[in-house]
Amino acid sequence: MAEPAEPPAPLRVALAGLGTVGAGVIRLIEANAALIARRAGRPIVISVVGARDRSKKRPVDLSPYAWEDDMVVMGERDDVDVVVELVGGADGPALSCARTTIEAGKALVTANKAMIAHHGLELAAKAEDKRVALKFEAAVAGGIPVIKGLREGAAANAIERVYGILNGTCNYILSTMEDSGRDFADVLAEAQAKGYAEADPAFDIEGTDAAHKLSILAAISFGSRVDFGAVDTSGITRLRAADIAQADALGYVIRLIGMAETEGAAGAQRLFQRVQPHLVPFDHPLAHVDGATNAVVAEGNFSGRLLFQGAGAGEGPTASAVVADLIDIARGEIGAPFSVPVAELEAMPRAESGHRMGRAYLRFMVADRPGVLAEITAALRDAGVSIESMIQKGRGGEAGEQVMVAMVTHEGPESAVSEALRLLEGSDSLTEPPLVMQILGE
Amino acid sequence: MAEPAEPPAPLRVALAGLGTVGAGVIRLIEANAALIARRAGRPIVISVVGARDRSKKRPVDLSPYAWEDDMVVMGERDDVDVVVELVGGADGPALSCARTTIEAGKALVTANKAMIAHHGLELAAKAEDKRVALKFEAAVAGGIPVIKGLREGAAANAIERVYGILNGTCNYILSTMEDSGRDFADVLAEAQAKGYAEADPAFDIEGTDAAHKLSILAAISFGSRVDFGAVDTSGITRLRAADIAQADALGYVIRLIGMAETEGAAGAQRLFQRVQPHLVPFDHPLAHVDGATNAVVAEGNFSGRLLFQGAGAGEGPTASAVVADLIDIARGEIGAPFSVPVAELEAMPRAESGHRMGRAYLRFMVADRPGVLAEITAALRDAGVSIESMIQKGRGGEAGEQVMVAMVTHEGPESAVSEALRLLEGSDSLTEPPLVMQILGE
Repeated sequence: MAEPAEPPAPLRVALAGLGTVGAGVIRLIEANAALIARRAGRPIVISVVGARDRSKKRPVDLSPYAWEDDMVVMGERDDVDVVVELVGGADGPALSCARTTIEAGKALVTANKAMIAHHGLELAAKAEDKRVALKFEAAVAGGIPVIKGLREGAAANAIERVYGILNGTCNYILSTMEDSGRDFADVLAEAQAKGYAEADPAFDIEGTDAAHKLSILAAISFGSRVDFGAVDTSGITRLRAADIAQADALGYVIRLIGMAETEGAAGAQRLFQRVQPHLVPFDHPLAHVDGATNAVVAEGNFSGRLLFQGAGAGEGPTASAVVADLIDIARGEIGAPFSVPVAELEAMPRAESGHRMGRAYLRFMVADRPGVLAEITAALRDAGVSIESMIQKGRGGEAGEQVMVAMVTHEGPESAVSEALRLLEGSDSLTEPPLVMQILGE
Repeated sequence: MAEPAEPPAPLRVALAGLGTVGAGVIRLIEANAALIARRAGRPIVISVVGARDRSKKRPVDLSPYAWEDDMVVMGERDDVDVVVELVGGADGPALSCARTTIEAGKALVTANKAMIAHHGLELAAKAEDKRVALKFEAAVAGGIPVIKGLREGAAANAIERVYGILNGTCNYILSTMEDSGRDFADVLAEAQAKGYAEADPAFDIEGTDAAHKLSILAAISFGSRVDFGAVDTSGITRLRAADIAQADALGYVIRLIGMAETEGAAGAQRLFQRVQPHLVPFDHPLAHVDGATNAVVAEGNFSGRLLFQGAGAGEGPTASAVVADLIDIARGEIGAPFSVPVAELEAMPRAESGHRMGRAYLRFMVADRPGVLAEITAALRDAGVSIESMIQKGRGGEAGEQVMVAMVTHEGPESAVSEALRLLEGSDSLTEPPLVMQILGE
């Protein structure tokens, strides 16, 4: 009789960080152990865990695992093949942990979008040098395998544009405002009470989190260097219930959209990246993405429009993405973290937005007195902005009350709208700065 | 100075079959050669092509490539690393080509859903034995990377249910009927004239094509053996414009849905597979999938609901999927074709549908005379089917004309509906057999 084959060695995982996602990873690896081993070709086991505070009460039993106080040295341990970094924060212990892990020749999996947006190129170059895997599926759009979808599934395509709904908190707030007719501050407070929004929600509602994710998607889609600093970012804090009602009357919903696109000929391309609330037509697939869901659209030159949709955050979905990366690593998949080696990523200068053609929604809060509308429309005319439809709301209140004037422009360059707003700057007819949102086109 | 590194050897591709998709693969590999080489780590080149008829005029220039008359021996040529089989048909030359290629120790990429549904297990076992890749992303849902999404992206999950819109021709016909109010035969004829439907459309409109794809998705999702023969299949040929209008009035669209699900405890699972027109609620993401688009939903035990959507067919999208497979092969990705080795796939017995709980749409065409409605409702009552709403249409025409009676049931077992239909069998009140469609639930 032949000797039985040696059973394959398990992949030994260190977990750095034991918050919600860390607990989810432990639960997933325990619950789905048998099928993971079958699909990975070998078992995936947690060997060691660590977090800032060992004494904290946690929802999972940590007794089967070794404890490591110093997350930075986890990757140097002999009983670890791969470190999962779930500490968070662009710098600090997360970055130190990532650097030492890769320098020790171990693979790194992370859900840390801020760290990848700021230091992804440095870490990827190190990982390529050491021939180890660096994977971050969970950093973008939670449980949706969109990094894999772009990096591998759409690998045959030149991606022409990538855009989507990248922040579940904002989408929850916007779709709740839409359903309830309530105002931003009110819905935000409720979302915080329910745990859907952080106590300090700035990263989400000001668009930073979506911008982190967009800069990572852009690099993978276009083979460009990650350039988080060049993302033109605005959030949802200035939206009013009236904007949403107005958009609805015109056939649109409002969604915070991250969009990236290249311009110019191959070899001399510029990169456009923007996070901004958009008006999305009812018949666009993104108009039906409600609640904390995320969705990413990629337009390939052969595939056409691909849509990936699912839960953008949460314990289970994020753990699903982390463990998918671990399975790839167990199978021996290394590959360039950004699809092509860092040395071959193009440094694309930032593309300006002025020449971009499109339709826009403009909203002015103005003093309720004669002549204001004439002043605004004159500025638009002088800047060459053509108005498709206009609604003046709230007139007829007390004297001196402010009035909302909303309009949609015809197709034209964004620079014309900017010029009109420049002409109106400092006008005492405006009671707050105008709000501009692009209308998502085909 | 160091010697320059040896450039990596190209991956040499043989194309068997030069129809629409073959032409698309040639165009794609030529147009995107530079980015493919960057992402694959080495060039991908076509070395040899072949088709049934060399003299046929084709839309791409074949002069750069060697010609091989006998597609069956392509894989045995020294100038070929991988064969792309685009001949079509479950058996015959496609299957011979696939077998000889794998036996020669070469990788095989195919878009042939019929062959994979019927012979995928045999071919995968051979490929595992020879340690070569067998890949078929293009066989399911065209350009959407759903095989990769399930096999790798969702690999950490036990998939609880997989379902979707798997046939673009049917979806084009249904959404056109919806938009235009026209009847099935009329829209089919137009689709044929426009080239959206085959001259012999039976494979599409009777659900066979969707069933091929569903059986492949089920195997990958559940780790079960491909069992095309066990798919309960019905098509869209019996649908009337009135059904679509009726569904619309009730808040639904009609879509041909392929659905697979397991039942029972691990190790003793049964497999449910069905292709059937369903009523899809307006607020479900699949209700907004129009035209020739495909979409697949997978529900994982940690990821939650994932949705993949895009073009389900066509030259560009299908070529995109074929070349994504080639890039994986160029990167050295082999892996088990069905995610786990064939020997470990479970043979799951077919699950019956009788105990499945759900709501259904029932439509009867009946003689326009007194007592017919009482007869139908009595049968439903005797079988324990509870009616939520009912509409009788078409009454008031000439005497003897047939009348349509449509209803939606409350939640109940499918066996009760079957029993009611059995009680009505042979009744001369019915002018044609009743039509039953399930309502897609959460």
